[in-house]
Amino acid sequence: MDKALLLNQVGNIFVEKMPFNRFLGISIQTLSADKAQIQLPWKDEFIGNPTQKILHGGVISAVLDNVGGLLAAASIIDKLSAEELHSVPNKLATLGTIDIRTDFLRPGRGEHFIASATLIRSGNKVCVCRMELHNELGIQLAFGTGTYLVG
Amino acid sequence: MDKALLLNQVGNIFVEKMPFNRFLGISIQTLSADKAQIQLPWKDEFIGNPTQKILHGGVISAVLDNVGGLLAAASIIDKLSAEELHSVPNKLATLGTIDIRTDFLRPGRGEHFIASATLIRSGNKVCVCRMELHNELGIQLAFGTGTYLVG
Amino acid sequence: MDKALLLNQVGNIFVEKMPFNRFLGISIQTLSADKAQIQLPWKDEFIGNPTQKILHGGVISAVLDNVGGLLAAASIIDKLSAEELHSVPNKLATLGTIDIRTDFLRPGRGEHFIASATLIRSGNKVCVCRMELHNELGIQLAFGTGTYLVG
Amino acid sequence: MDKALLLNQVGNIFVEKMPFNRFLGISIQTLSADKAQIQLPWKDEFIGNPTQKILHGGVISAVLDNVGGLLAAASIIDKLSAEELHSVPNKLATLGTIDIRTDFLRPGRGEHFIASATLIRSGNKVCVCRMELHNELGIQLAFGTGTYLVG
Repeated sequence: MDKALLLNQVGNIFVEKMPFNRFLGISIQTLSADKAQIQLPWKDEFIGNPTQKILHGGVISAVLDNVGGLLAAASIIDKLSAEELHSVPNKLATLGTIDIRTDFLRPGRGEHFIASATLIRSGNKVCVCRMELHNELGIQLAFGTGTYLVG
Repeated sequence: MDKALLLNQVGNIFVEKMPFNRFLGISIQTLSADKAQIQLPWKDEFIGNPTQKILHGGVISAVLDNVGGLLAAASIIDKLSAEELHSVPNKLATLGTIDIRTDFLRPGRGEHFIASATLIRSGNKVCVCRMELHNELGIQLAFGTGTYLVG
Repeated sequence: MDKALLLNQVGNIFVEKMPFNRFLGISIQTLSADKAQIQLPWKDEFIGNPTQKILHGGVISAVLDNVGGLLAAASIIDKLSAEELHSVPNKLATLGTIDIRTDFLRPGRGEHFIASATLIRSGNKVCVCRMELHNELGIQLAFGTGTYLVG
Repeated sequence: MDKALLLNQVGNIFVEKMPFNRFLGISIQTLSADKAQIQLPWKDEFIGNPTQKILHGGVISAVLDNVGGLLAAASIIDKLSAEELHSVPNKLATLGTIDIRTDFLRPGRGEHFIASATLIRSGNKVCVCRMELHNELGIQLAFGTGTYLVG
């Protein structure tokens, strides 16, 4: 099995097999060893404010954590040799977020949302990602920094 | 209108009028000027892992942000004089999370979950809360620290 | 008094009148309303490890906090009208860091270090900065995110 | 060599062999597998404000990082079997802070300062500590949360 195929499988699991991600309606736009990007439609269930049609902060944190974790998974796969690829399911089963910081910049207004992650520290045990959330107009809504256990 | 009544109204809005909180199924257990505690049932939609029945990290961040924000609202009300209470709706409309850090301690396993917040810095413009998430067995699952704009 | 002169004065106070900054040996390279950059020489007193000649993490956090706070000060000045400039000393006296996150990327090795800050949220009460630390070879050593009380 | 002796040696290295800690003037009050506490005198070099005699925020972050890292070292030693104790120097050489958040609560005023850390997540690869800083009057000045690489 090659890495591109594996990445594709991981993306499918992420989108289809995780109930909370299905609720969020996430789709994957980019998934490589150094960048991940996902998209999210507006849904009224995401509203976090009785008077304004804006995203609940928890939805924002969740989406940022998601895209960072997805990139962490891709970075695990990227580092494995061909002989080690069979261990991917075990490795991914132990992948987890250690901590995440979300900085909310503007009210979460939009028709759809794009979250992206880049790797800023890539180790054998831990990786750190920076994440951003924009709406469809390119307005940045939030920043995030996540530390993931990968080994 | 007195403060106890106002707190009660704020709690009702929080639980009933915020669509994402309705999705989460939050109920309020305690709401005073220095402590807030909310409860959350298990729901299969919260699952964040295809193989394990555990909470998605995004659900955990959302719940911690919620209980911290609820306490921030209570602390706004607490500081107002009787003459200022009419300004509560305006004050609450500008209440927002500036940043939040979540530390994930253990897999989010449980039948229901209790999130609590205490105020560690209470200013006129900004307050900072510490939050904790436990399951029904009293096992701590996560910690959080949130900075809220209150003025 | 014009803003350029005020910025210059603030920079001088920062470098010369703050004892801990004098210990750090900080000099200012850039200071405008949207970017601040400072420089730091290597000093043996900064060593945080008995066996390796690398910066103590506390020095890294301090430098990142410094450059973020300096930019926060510049952003306060930038927002004032000509008539309000006399209030700068009062405003700066209440400027303070609310919280800061430092992400350590690589061992703090170098002959000198450059810390820079950009503004990611600029409000009347709170601003949020992103900071980076590089050594003289352009290798990034750390990231930071700081929330500052400005109003 | 037994663990108590090792802990004592680690404490000595921390206090005496790290130049930045010598600058800070740190002494150790408690060091066990689940709690660390250190003390710090006031020094004029710590001043971070030209008009007020208060600690620079960078000093506060540094002290919190220190006490968290010291507890992380103690937790490494605690987990080793008698046969593994010879590996302590190697283990400690790779110990490092991944990320730290500092929440500043009050101006850093005092004659001396006490920083303490407790372990909130203790894994084979990563541990997470909560830290607090108080002055000699018991007034809390800051909170911290640090994630440390321990394996």
